[in-house]
Amino acid sequence: MITVLAGGVGGSKFIHGLSLLDITNSVAIINTGDDIEKFGLYVSPDIDINIYRLANVIHEQGWGFEGDTYQFQEILSTIYQEDCWFNLGDKDIATHIYRSNLLKEGYSLSEITQKMCEKFNTNIAILPMSNNPVSTYVDTPDGEYHFQEYLIKRRMSDKVHSIKLAGIEEALPAPGVLEAINESSIIFIAPSNFYVSINPILSIPGVREAIKNSNAKVIGISPIIGGNAVKGPLAKMMKDFNVEISPYGVAQLYDGLLDGFIIDHQDHDCKADIQNLDISVLTTNTILDTEEQKETLIREALLFVENL
Amino acid sequence: MITVLAGGVGGSKFIHGLSLLDITNSVAIINTGDDIEKFGLYVSPDIDINIYRLANVIHEQGWGFEGDTYQFQEILSTIYQEDCWFNLGDKDIATHIYRSNLLKEGYSLSEITQKMCEKFNTNIAILPMSNNPVSTYVDTPDGEYHFQEYLIKRRMSDKVHSIKLAGIEEALPAPGVLEAINESSIIFIAPSNFYVSINPILSIPGVREAIKNSNAKVIGISPIIGGNAVKGPLAKMMKDFNVEISPYGVAQLYDGLLDGFIIDHQDHDCKADIQNLDISVLTTNTILDTEEQKETLIREALLFVENL
Repeated sequence: MITVLAGGVGGSKFIHGLSLLDITNSVAIINTGDDIEKFGLYVSPDIDINIYRLANVIHEQGWGFEGDTYQFQEILSTIYQEDCWFNLGDKDIATHIYRSNLLKEGYSLSEITQKMCEKFNTNIAILPMSNNPVSTYVDTPDGEYHFQEYLIKRRMSDKVHSIKLAGIEEALPAPGVLEAINESSIIFIAPSNFYVSINPILSIPGVREAIKNSNAKVIGISPIIGGNAVKGPLAKMMKDFNVEISPYGVAQLYDGLLDGFIIDHQDHDCKADIQNLDISVLTTNTILDTEEQKETLIREALLFVENL
Repeated sequence: MITVLAGGVGGSKFIHGLSLLDITNSVAIINTGDDIEKFGLYVSPDIDINIYRLANVIHEQGWGFEGDTYQFQEILSTIYQEDCWFNLGDKDIATHIYRSNLLKEGYSLSEITQKMCEKFNTNIAILPMSNNPVSTYVDTPDGEYHFQEYLIKRRMSDKVHSIKLAGIEEALPAPGVLEAINESSIIFIAPSNFYVSINPILSIPGVREAIKNSNAKVIGISPIIGGNAVKGPLAKMMKDFNVEISPYGVAQLYDGLLDGFIIDHQDHDCKADIQNLDISVLTTNTILDTEEQKETLIREALLFVENL
């Protein structure tokens, strides 16, 4: 059994590789710290990105529904004068309404996510990290913002002083999360933002300990390639936190959790430093734009683990 | 001051005439017995039809938003396997989400309707008949259906035994309803379905009495033209209830409320029978497809009242 910890865009590409190779004994534990309520609808961006990706209905921009339109939002902004900085496409709204109604009916996020996996016919189980609300806030010189507001409305323009995971102390791992970790022989930490995707998962009481105590090999894939993040604010945040913007910097953030780390050819000069942290290193292509690249990386990662 | 009692498609065309002539001291009291909750959203079809009509954004089919698309519904039905017999367009959804959220925040339907009138810049006040839930059910040989289900899903195919207005005894007239009736010199009963649009309004405790006791001239416009309803199930229902399908049949249903009745040229042979009910009759064109037809009817109706 394989467990993957992941956020949205970057992580979903890695999980897509497992799906393409039909490695169906995999469980993806997905960050829900980005979840937000907009216009009365509960939106779970990272879960949606992963399910849409696995179902091959993801928009080419990396999130949202392919071929989506924005008629709903046009009326909401022009006539009802609502501030529509958070993009909700017309197709995508179906997901938010479906989920929001089931939540109102008393279903848990886990149960709804499982239903969605069935509806979209994914071959990999997607689990929310928790059924309890966790909200990621970013503290900036201009005040505190929900991560989505910082990311989308403020276009990551603020210096980040610190990141707060509201609700994390009270959050329980969702059903299946600890079981997946305990039963897995490999735990992949997908190429996602450490601060706002991976750390929320690791910070749920019990999760980091379960990973530490498991017999699984823990393998990270660097979200930093050639000095930058493929997508999102990770590099900016590392700079704000005075962390070296390199796979070596990321490896240090995982703080003793990794048995192996997969880095891009571009970063081969980090290899020795990472190995000095007692972490095995695989240097390969980690850019995951095509299906072939995704499948190749998964095959190489599985071989890498076998030889650890 | 002029008050109009109305339902959706037919009634909105008459109210549109008042709006076109900028007769802004008018209040339209709109049926809310058709209101329904779909996918967790509160939908108020007759209010929306009237506001969209006054704002000139009505779809040419007579309800919904012009140029609307159905991407939301396509995903909800194909992927989430929801039964989407009740059409919700992508633009239209903005209205339902806007209203539903304000209801959740504690605003009344009246307050929300007023906000919508402001957003859509209507020059006539639209009032819901009540802020309390009233639901119109149709009893048929196959069981009881919400009016919308009978109308849309079952395409008016059932024989109607009776019509139930659930909640009507506990419903209070919405703020402004009795005041409008009391202060008006003319009360128009728009060419709407008696059973499911006008009767719900008249059946709210206090409304029929207020109209009876008011000094206003009460003028109906026949929704039956040439032996059929311009739109909707009125003629079918009259047949099921053994009522003559003619303006004379409709005039009888109003049961002593009318001072005058406006009927179409096609129905001039009803004139004497209606006059025998002690109701003055204006025979003219009552088909309201064009702006010119609407404006002409309003002008003629106002002259008719003056000469009563």
